[in-house]
Amino acid sequence: MTTWLPSATVGIVGGGQLARMTQQAAIDLGIELRVLARDRNDAAVSVSDKTSFGPPESLPDLRRLAESCDVLTFDHELVPNRHLVALERDGHDLQPPARAKLVAQDKLHARRLMASGGIPVPEFAPIHTAADVEKFAGRHAWPVVLKSRSGGYDGRGVRIVEDMEAAEQVAFDRGNWLVESFVPVELEASQIVVRTRSGEVAAYPLVRTLQRNGICVETIAPAGVSPAIAEDCRELACEVADSIGAVGVMAIELFLTPRAELLVNEVALRPHNTGHFTIEGCETSQFENHLRAVLGWPLGPTWPVAPAVAMRNLIGTDSGSPSTRVGMALRVAGAHLHLYGKEPAPGRKLGHVTAIGEDVDEARRKCSEAIAILQPEEIPWAT
Amino acid sequence: MTTWLPSATVGIVGGGQLARMTQQAAIDLGIELRVLARDRNDAAVSVSDKTSFGPPESLPDLRRLAESCDVLTFDHELVPNRHLVALERDGHDLQPPARAKLVAQDKLHARRLMASGGIPVPEFAPIHTAADVEKFAGRHAWPVVLKSRSGGYDGRGVRIVEDMEAAEQVAFDRGNWLVESFVPVELEASQIVVRTRSGEVAAYPLVRTLQRNGICVETIAPAGVSPAIAEDCRELACEVADSIGAVGVMAIELFLTPRAELLVNEVALRPHNTGHFTIEGCETSQFENHLRAVLGWPLGPTWPVAPAVAMRNLIGTDSGSPSTRVGMALRVAGAHLHLYGKEPAPGRKLGHVTAIGEDVDEARRKCSEAIAILQPEEIPWAT
Repeated sequence: MTTWLPSATVGIVGGGQLARMTQQAAIDLGIELRVLARDRNDAAVSVSDKTSFGPPESLPDLRRLAESCDVLTFDHELVPNRHLVALERDGHDLQPPARAKLVAQDKLHARRLMASGGIPVPEFAPIHTAADVEKFAGRHAWPVVLKSRSGGYDGRGVRIVEDMEAAEQVAFDRGNWLVESFVPVELEASQIVVRTRSGEVAAYPLVRTLQRNGICVETIAPAGVSPAIAEDCRELACEVADSIGAVGVMAIELFLTPRAELLVNEVALRPHNTGHFTIEGCETSQFENHLRAVLGWPLGPTWPVAPAVAMRNLIGTDSGSPSTRVGMALRVAGAHLHLYGKEPAPGRKLGHVTAIGEDVDEARRKCSEAIAILQPEEIPWAT
Repeated sequence: MTTWLPSATVGIVGGGQLARMTQQAAIDLGIELRVLARDRNDAAVSVSDKTSFGPPESLPDLRRLAESCDVLTFDHELVPNRHLVALERDGHDLQPPARAKLVAQDKLHARRLMASGGIPVPEFAPIHTAADVEKFAGRHAWPVVLKSRSGGYDGRGVRIVEDMEAAEQVAFDRGNWLVESFVPVELEASQIVVRTRSGEVAAYPLVRTLQRNGICVETIAPAGVSPAIAEDCRELACEVADSIGAVGVMAIELFLTPRAELLVNEVALRPHNTGHFTIEGCETSQFENHLRAVLGWPLGPTWPVAPAVAMRNLIGTDSGSPSTRVGMALRVAGAHLHLYGKEPAPGRKLGHVTAIGEDVDEARRKCSEAIAILQPEEIPWAT
């Protein structure tokens, strides 16, 4: 018997929920997705029979994966950039390329690259000591924002510092830091774009993001901004993707200030939590378009399929596993559950719920009802 | 580290494309789907790390699967019904139950059950010899349709016989047969319904099915019948599901005659090819609703999410593997590919393409364009 030949073989470093949902898209396209997971508890392990195991810091494991695939892509930012460079020197095809991926791995590099390209970002400076913070605050103002150059996400690695006393509490010896101006924010938004190998960029609808303690809890589209601002966000995001030379899906998180200034906050070069709404909300999901882009295939349409779409994250609390409450949550008509198969822990993203609707209120209501069942307790916010 | 607990564990006998697409839905709901596949080439093997292997005729293999799951369901009709009865006697939960599943496994039983319940079906009779066929044709008319009681699908096991000479060519000793009146058909349709364990039935939009040589090549919704006929189809299908005691998704294939009579042709007690349009076309896919129903969870809405939806099957030809043409087919904006990961063979269903649209013509055009790329040669119709 002849065996099935996949349409392509894609390696993905990291076995989290992004790899898990990418696999759902890969199945439809006949793509063999080969995941390098850290261990058997990773979210993507149960959805394929081709998973390999190893830490993302292991060059031999990365090499073995790259050798078995047409193209290598990423579920996270944790692969040391020097390994990516080494894999490219070996002749492997990495998308996004090592040079582009560095922008998501090093916040100082990202700020410098964007600032030098004329892309609006908050004022920033590298710092090594509390004295550096004081100098920066003297030039700008208190409070300031201290950020770890790498490794931070979901509010971790970010501190708002009100004064010199607080700055002196920071252990600057552990890791590299940068300091930024604290920007008063009218609205936070995320613009998901996807860029092909040949430089074509397509933008999804802008979403407004609602945060608690630095973690995004909800996204809504339309974002509730004027068409002119939405267009500015789209153009700015496309410019960022081009300047970085990104390939695949990219999330550009934006601040809109009370004076209607737009600033780029964070960027991620991979499918992103703020793009999960595209699964039900758009003609082509971010996961399918990421695969299309890294393979050099034509992009699918990014247009919305409904007037409004909302997404709410399911975040772990102390009240046990949400998987025991799935049956009840399914009573909410039109709420689409996505569970990640991760062991529950307070503050951990365990899944999300998406709903489409005639308007934002309807879509948000469906999501809230389902989340209230799945996650009946307040989220224990780590500070 | 605590491990993830699935929301439920569902066993599925058979590892074909239905199990593959059911797994895509199971992933979202945090369900652990355990597939019993025949061999490593089966379509569902690559999409899970929990597959077991064995023939569906092996009671020990079925027992092992049932023992590891909350509920057992099916990708096909091939498990001997006596094994299903044995599993139920062991105390395992089978959905649909053995008694209901028999209706899809034995066409004579199905005809008798439906006829006795007042459900309109073609005239039929069990037969053993060509003389029985002659007697039936004498009472009704030539031509007649000979059907294998079990095992037939995609046009196999069905013959239209014009006269006694043709009837005498049939090897009646090999298998059980029934004879039916040949029904002049104005339009063929399929009504997908889903029935819960407590007897609630929800119906999807009726689809018109277009066949070539007994294989469905295309489905379209709306089906192009009057609202009154669509309502009759819905009511008839719900009645069939109730009378059978089906649980889960059920496909009821219907004949509409030139005199506007409705007759039940075939039934399947599982997700069905004519229900694939529900993935993109409806609020909840047939695969997710099948899982919800067999687990006793609330059904999701079956309403359409677009004015029109078309589905075209991708059928193997002699022109090599369609997976080499995926990149090109993705140029067709709005055509959603679903490849099954099956080794190509002439006449074999290898995937399908779905498109939504403002009207049926738009949706059909997108599907046709993608299929013309994936399957550039005529389908070699086996007779």
